[in-house]
Amino acid sequence: MQTPSKILDNAVEQLSSLPGIGKRSALRLALHLLKRNEHEIHDFANSIIDLKLNVINCKECGNISDQPVCDICLNPNRSSEIICVVEDIRDIIAVESTGAFKGKYHVLGGVISPMDGIGPNDLNIQPLLEKVNSKKVEEIIFALSPTMEGDTTNFYLYKKLKEYAPLITTLSRGVSVGAELHYADEMSLSRSITQRQKYNEE
Amino acid sequence: MQTPSKILDNAVEQLSSLPGIGKRSALRLALHLLKRNEHEIHDFANSIIDLKLNVINCKECGNISDQPVCDICLNPNRSSEIICVVEDIRDIIAVESTGAFKGKYHVLGGVISPMDGIGPNDLNIQPLLEKVNSKKVEEIIFALSPTMEGDTTNFYLYKKLKEYAPLITTLSRGVSVGAELHYADEMSLSRSITQRQKYNEE
Repeated sequence: MQTPSKILDNAVEQLSSLPGIGKRSALRLALHLLKRNEHEIHDFANSIIDLKLNVINCKECGNISDQPVCDICLNPNRSSEIICVVEDIRDIIAVESTGAFKGKYHVLGGVISPMDGIGPNDLNIQPLLEKVNSKKVEEIIFALSPTMEGDTTNFYLYKKLKEYAPLITTLSRGVSVGAELHYADEMSLSRSITQRQKYNEE
Repeated sequence: MQTPSKILDNAVEQLSSLPGIGKRSALRLALHLLKRNEHEIHDFANSIIDLKLNVINCKECGNISDQPVCDICLNPNRSSEIICVVEDIRDIIAVESTGAFKGKYHVLGGVISPMDGIGPNDLNIQPLLEKVNSKKVEEIIFALSPTMEGDTTNFYLYKKLKEYAPLITTLSRGVSVGAELHYADEMSLSRSITQRQKYNEE
């Protein structure tokens, strides 16, 4: 697909380099942007440049942040003794949106995946070891995705961390809340039976 | 949804203002952009600013162009005596990709749509009238979408233009090429029967 303008072609090329955006969608976006005024376009472009130039990683946990240490690590109401290990920043946003966790995080930046050539040394694991080695830690929660790679990473981290933390936990797995039981996949249903919980009246 | 960074929030806000991109997709795009290097980010942002500052409308046909007159209007191998009237620039790209048209275009910038408050005066119709009034025109093709608004616009244009052009045509309508007949909608099938063509051995 080629448009009558090389400049438009270039913008379409750039927009379609984003994940999940094809040439047609990119053209739609570019034509949409073309209808905005100059001020709006500068705001749009600057927000992306600003992102690259000014967003940094929290030096404590690896979370994304505007300052050297992120708001979560700076929050005195959150316990430093419970560390929730996550794969990336989207997982922090997901866990935060539940409001169910009041400890701090550690972002690995990925999971061990030999198929993709990602080993333990490619991840943000060493700072985690140093952290649990130097500070008092009560519990480490492995909040990685329930996939083969997530499980491999859990196992690796468990072996490295078990002597430093009195308690190491993982997210419970089982049937989704709100879903009909007969739609649950076999693995999840099987887990939810073998890891069944005592009925609680609360 | 709120991220741990106000700068990221702002980029997500800007990206999700694009049509068809929700907050979650916007976050995915922003995190993707964050992984690129500074040079790539500047190229990306500049392509969009360049789009706004330097893409103009061809003064002959309303097509998008990098120069005052677009490549199609400048092309001496294309006939100025056949004008294909389209709604917007995406229709030019679609017709051009067929390679079946060797005349020139006129972009209306929309169709008459009383429901959306768009009347004839909001469209690029006056320059078309002046063009056909001052130059020799053999045929005007109405290549508008086969919708109620497209039909209304066709009818309006026909009344305005019929005295200036010996031939006024519209795109043929009928069953799509390559689709199975029993999946065709009633309207298209009905049109393709009433406007049936003499069988051609070629």
